[in-house]
Amino acid sequence: MDVTTDRQREAILLLSGGLDSATVLAIALAEGFALHTLSFRYGQRHARELHAARLIAKRPGVLSHRVAEVDLGAIGGSALTTPTPVPKGRTPNDMAATIPVTYVPARNTIFLSYALALAEVLGVWDIFIGVNALDYSGYPDCRPEYIAAFERLANLATRAGVEGDHGFRIHTPLLQLTKGDIVRRGLALGVDYSITHSCYDPSDEGLACGTCDACQLRLKGFAEVGVPDPIPYQGAGPYSP
Amino acid sequence: MDVTTDRQREAILLLSGGLDSATVLAIALAEGFALHTLSFRYGQRHARELHAARLIAKRPGVLSHRVAEVDLGAIGGSALTTPTPVPKGRTPNDMAATIPVTYVPARNTIFLSYALALAEVLGVWDIFIGVNALDYSGYPDCRPEYIAAFERLANLATRAGVEGDHGFRIHTPLLQLTKGDIVRRGLALGVDYSITHSCYDPSDEGLACGTCDACQLRLKGFAEVGVPDPIPYQGAGPYSP
Repeated sequence: MDVTTDRQREAILLLSGGLDSATVLAIALAEGFALHTLSFRYGQRHARELHAARLIAKRPGVLSHRVAEVDLGAIGGSALTTPTPVPKGRTPNDMAATIPVTYVPARNTIFLSYALALAEVLGVWDIFIGVNALDYSGYPDCRPEYIAAFERLANLATRAGVEGDHGFRIHTPLLQLTKGDIVRRGLALGVDYSITHSCYDPSDEGLACGTCDACQLRLKGFAEVGVPDPIPYQGAGPYSP
Repeated sequence: MDVTTDRQREAILLLSGGLDSATVLAIALAEGFALHTLSFRYGQRHARELHAARLIAKRPGVLSHRVAEVDLGAIGGSALTTPTPVPKGRTPNDMAATIPVTYVPARNTIFLSYALALAEVLGVWDIFIGVNALDYSGYPDCRPEYIAAFERLANLATRAGVEGDHGFRIHTPLLQLTKGDIVRRGLALGVDYSITHSCYDPSDEGLACGTCDACQLRLKGFAEVGVPDPIPYQGAGPYSP
């Protein structure tokens, strides 16, 4: 649905601080949206992501940046929020075949619900999220049928969806891209990947491990494009320069 | 979908501390479920609800009670979380005709998302919520089509929904009941309404105002049944004894 107003179009962007959402930010800006970015503090062990999100959100065209506290830790159930070991050395095929312990129950549903609330409050109809169904880590809430179901829910759930003359739209520009496509697209749009953070299990100094699912997918992306990942790694990751 | 296991069936119950969710708790117990109750601290002015929820959750058959912090206050946009005046003296017809300022954007979507996360972590397939489409306050996320869309989303969003052999089910036993029906049902099931709290705008001592939408709907329920509401009110509400 096209939304035409006198002022520049605005959208909400879910910004994790990782490679994917930093790329989506650049894509949304290139499409002419001004952005309100939304990050979450959810008891994750990698609070370093939030620092990366703050840096990424300094780009011109970002109107506001919010960090919402989300009490996922109290609910538990994931290696990202509880002390279960993060799996290392899985191949992309392993990742696609099974949902890993790093899966956070209903995470994207909770995050999109907050984005929807913020969109309604700000009078904004567009929400960007960096989910990816191709080179992904086996999470069910990264699939196109899930996103379509959420968009449908959004338009039933809200005063804006019921009374408004527009509809909410969930934008997923990375959905069908490989990690290589994502990196290529981001580099073309001037994304500074040196300030992004993807690792599930960084060192105390914040260095990426190079072997968790997130690191391996990221390194695969840079390897496909044939450029080095600009962030430093602990030791030598499988694709690291 | 029937779920048969050796142990007693368990369910998540969203427990606000009000009349409706206290009644749903009794209905779910009567249906043979053991319950994990989930309440939210979301910057609401009526934190007194949380005290009521704790008291209600003491009933036998409740296995656990959790309070999750939800950062809705940072997002704003409702008289329940921000200092906008709560509307008073609206008739039930007024309430059905327009969505009031007490509407919290995407609230039930956020709450159900947390319930879904908890259900998945606990290995539970049933979620109870006290929404009511008949005598309600004009909220879009209390309608049957909204609940059906969330149930569909739940089964696409989660590892349990994708890999499991069951499906998530959202139970809404109050959906088509009048407030009178709800009170009648609750009284028959032994609900102690004296420990519930419904008012959007209580006095500093916690006394209900008697004139906000929540109070008026509650008092209408007791009036329909012909029994006095056991809680005290400031001054005389329109139906108060």
